[in-house]
Amino acid sequence: MPTSVEFKDSVLHHIDEFKKIAGDAYVLIDKESLAAYDHDETENLHFLPDIVIKPRSAAEISAIMKICNEHKIPVTPRGAGTGLSGGALPHLGGVLLSMERMNSIVEIDERNLQVTTEPGVITEVLQDAVKEKGLFYPPDPSSRGSCFIGGNIAENSGGPKAVKYGVVKDYVLNLEVVLPTGEIIWTGANVLKNSTGYNLTQLIVGSEGTLGIVTKIVLKLLPFPKYDLLMLVPFNSLEKAGEAVSAIFRAGFTPSAMELVEINALKIVSRFVDSTVVPVTDEMEAHLIIEVDGNHRETLMSEMEAISELLLQYDCGDVFFADDAQQKAELWKLRRRVAEAVKLNGYTIEEDTVVPRAELPALIRGVKALGVEYGFDVVCYGHAGDGNLHIRIKKPGSIYSLNNKDVIPALNAMFKLVKSLGGTISGEHGIGLIQKEYMDIVFDNANLQLMKEIKKVFDPNNILNSGKIFDC
Amino acid sequence: MPTSVEFKDSVLHHIDEFKKIAGDAYVLIDKESLAAYDHDETENLHFLPDIVIKPRSAAEISAIMKICNEHKIPVTPRGAGTGLSGGALPHLGGVLLSMERMNSIVEIDERNLQVTTEPGVITEVLQDAVKEKGLFYPPDPSSRGSCFIGGNIAENSGGPKAVKYGVVKDYVLNLEVVLPTGEIIWTGANVLKNSTGYNLTQLIVGSEGTLGIVTKIVLKLLPFPKYDLLMLVPFNSLEKAGEAVSAIFRAGFTPSAMELVEINALKIVSRFVDSTVVPVTDEMEAHLIIEVDGNHRETLMSEMEAISELLLQYDCGDVFFADDAQQKAELWKLRRRVAEAVKLNGYTIEEDTVVPRAELPALIRGVKALGVEYGFDVVCYGHAGDGNLHIRIKKPGSIYSLNNKDVIPALNAMFKLVKSLGGTISGEHGIGLIQKEYMDIVFDNANLQLMKEIKKVFDPNNILNSGKIFDC
Repeated sequence: MPTSVEFKDSVLHHIDEFKKIAGDAYVLIDKESLAAYDHDETENLHFLPDIVIKPRSAAEISAIMKICNEHKIPVTPRGAGTGLSGGALPHLGGVLLSMERMNSIVEIDERNLQVTTEPGVITEVLQDAVKEKGLFYPPDPSSRGSCFIGGNIAENSGGPKAVKYGVVKDYVLNLEVVLPTGEIIWTGANVLKNSTGYNLTQLIVGSEGTLGIVTKIVLKLLPFPKYDLLMLVPFNSLEKAGEAVSAIFRAGFTPSAMELVEINALKIVSRFVDSTVVPVTDEMEAHLIIEVDGNHRETLMSEMEAISELLLQYDCGDVFFADDAQQKAELWKLRRRVAEAVKLNGYTIEEDTVVPRAELPALIRGVKALGVEYGFDVVCYGHAGDGNLHIRIKKPGSIYSLNNKDVIPALNAMFKLVKSLGGTISGEHGIGLIQKEYMDIVFDNANLQLMKEIKKVFDPNNILNSGKIFDC
Repeated sequence: MPTSVEFKDSVLHHIDEFKKIAGDAYVLIDKESLAAYDHDETENLHFLPDIVIKPRSAAEISAIMKICNEHKIPVTPRGAGTGLSGGALPHLGGVLLSMERMNSIVEIDERNLQVTTEPGVITEVLQDAVKEKGLFYPPDPSSRGSCFIGGNIAENSGGPKAVKYGVVKDYVLNLEVVLPTGEIIWTGANVLKNSTGYNLTQLIVGSEGTLGIVTKIVLKLLPFPKYDLLMLVPFNSLEKAGEAVSAIFRAGFTPSAMELVEINALKIVSRFVDSTVVPVTDEMEAHLIIEVDGNHRETLMSEMEAISELLLQYDCGDVFFADDAQQKAELWKLRRRVAEAVKLNGYTIEEDTVVPRAELPALIRGVKALGVEYGFDVVCYGHAGDGNLHIRIKKPGSIYSLNNKDVIPALNAMFKLVKSLGGTISGEHGIGLIQKEYMDIVFDNANLQLMKEIKKVFDPNNILNSGKIFDC
């Protein structure tokens, strides 16, 4: 690979062409602009791009990619920069392709319960727009108020609702994609069932911007459920809380959210957002946030009662029912802002582990033991109903994990534990830059080789988000 | 490509090795055995393999594939042979690899609501086994009483329940796959959310046995819903029935089945199974079969009433409620045996079109017009809630479509119509042998090229189910 300095010269050599394509105002090389795109929400990592381009159409992106492909200039596509694995970090310099101007909702198809959108639309804006028509796009990452739907596609994002409604991949019907070579394809069709050729749609979803640049997205929608009920349940034992989670599903319930927050995380976020809604006592170790939704209020009430009853067997404390919209919003605010709050409190390293649901207690127990063994402090929270546990690590002197020899052995041990429990290293954040060195814990060589060769099929010159997921 | 005679010599040259791997009793070359594997349920097509091998493990398959890969011997994997696109037809001769002995359910994991199974288990057997534990595997192709779960993975099968519960791809968590080179991989992990590398699991699902041979399957399960209600609604107009379908979803209902059967098909199948459960009058054009399911009977009753009320706006006749298990079974028998009945009545050519749900009336209208224009008789039925319409064609003198110049222009016109409505050419049957020449109607060249290169990545010698989906 050429060095970054060589890239810079190569990039700047084409600046007039880029300006002609995207317009003068949308091609930036001043230091301040570059610095605004040198990071995402991953740890505390910064990499300057050589140039920032903000195209407005697939045609412009195609023209830009043709130049970059011909001259082997690295390109990093970027949504809102809320990612947690470094997918949007321009670690090789080169072109930072910001999708922020591709921000139109193209069509809400009420006849077919579908929406076609550009990638630069904020997820919550999209959710609100379809909700106005009585429709529901469920995947709701914690960052939904700021992240882009395009980034959600790239990472195959989840969120609290995934436990009942599935993740992004379960809603994507069809994608318009600009390939690294500049060609533009649609991956599928706007249909609910499709057995027509290889599923390129699902190959692009979760490929972290390494196979192509998504420029239009067709999503399946559902009717918006009329009611939801929310409760918060304290537990005296973190492991018991984990056991309660799988008991609820085994008993035949399918909550629309089933979140776990360890007590330390809850204390930190309560202070952070200045909330006293959740009473905290010394003997509590964790809380479950449980939501049910549907079209029949009485049915939901009886479900909630039955779930509360069941939880008594798991040594839970007094159940707190959110009575109105305001209390619900307050609880969700607490949950959604945990990551931000604990990060500011020194838990800067986040892992996105996922295991079969019933293995959560074993994972929690194991992670705590590793904390003692490797000398780090840890808080756990996440989408317990999916077995998706976010593990936040605080280790004095280590504010990030990338290439950090003080942290890598601990993470290796943690991911080996995850693998031994039947799990894997990312449930919804992606691998990006920071987890790629652990890929061989969960995949053997034949599998990684297939992935690398698929990358080559799409990107023969290895220019698009190169060095993410794996090196090839 | 060598001719079939050369393959035969090559195959027979290795017969002792194959016998050593799979056992003498499971390597067959006698004419009767070969003839039993020369067809599936596709049209009236027959192709003799040179040899039939019935392995019992991934290790045996791996050893067989290494020999075939080295000597470029074509291999056709086969489940139960119920496919409708020719995926299991050994059209090049060579090795027919029957998965019938790989028929164990490995583990029903009640803690995590998952099942691990071998591919040769009959889908209904699998469904019944998990139902005994109170669990639910929803995808239910009409052939579920005889098809294998492995074939369902290969074709990304659907069935009536898909409208609420999704298709096979929505349940597959992880796959053990023997690659054409003989290597054995697991594609993912046994988890509900996964953003770890490219989604090879979803790439294998629906790849019709062209990328690898699935030897173990991990499926997500749901709690089995306690109740279901079923009704049959006659319509005086086929198009009105189609309109009613999308009205039901727009009104916020999500039935667990929403099937359409045109009156001709219903008459044929009623005679075929000797049933009089459905009263038929001269003015009827079609029926909808509508099911709702869930855990609260009263809620379901009120939903059914509301749906019936809504349907009155679409010129429907008297609603027939299935009162008990026997009536429900009778109705489902009628629906499930339509394909078999109409095929025996001369409708031997079946297309598996899918369009956005609200375009069903336009598709039905267009197909009827094409029948007049191209001189074929047509009956329609299928999974209307998904926009997935099976179109059965009867054209005197044409019992199949493959390489048939009397039929190809009509199918070209039909698939162009489907494409123009935002649809595609297969919703759940796959492309296989008989639809591959229409792939360029729905995909442009760049897209097809990606698929062909992915095929090369997995199968560099093009030995595994070669010539299915596309030629490469």
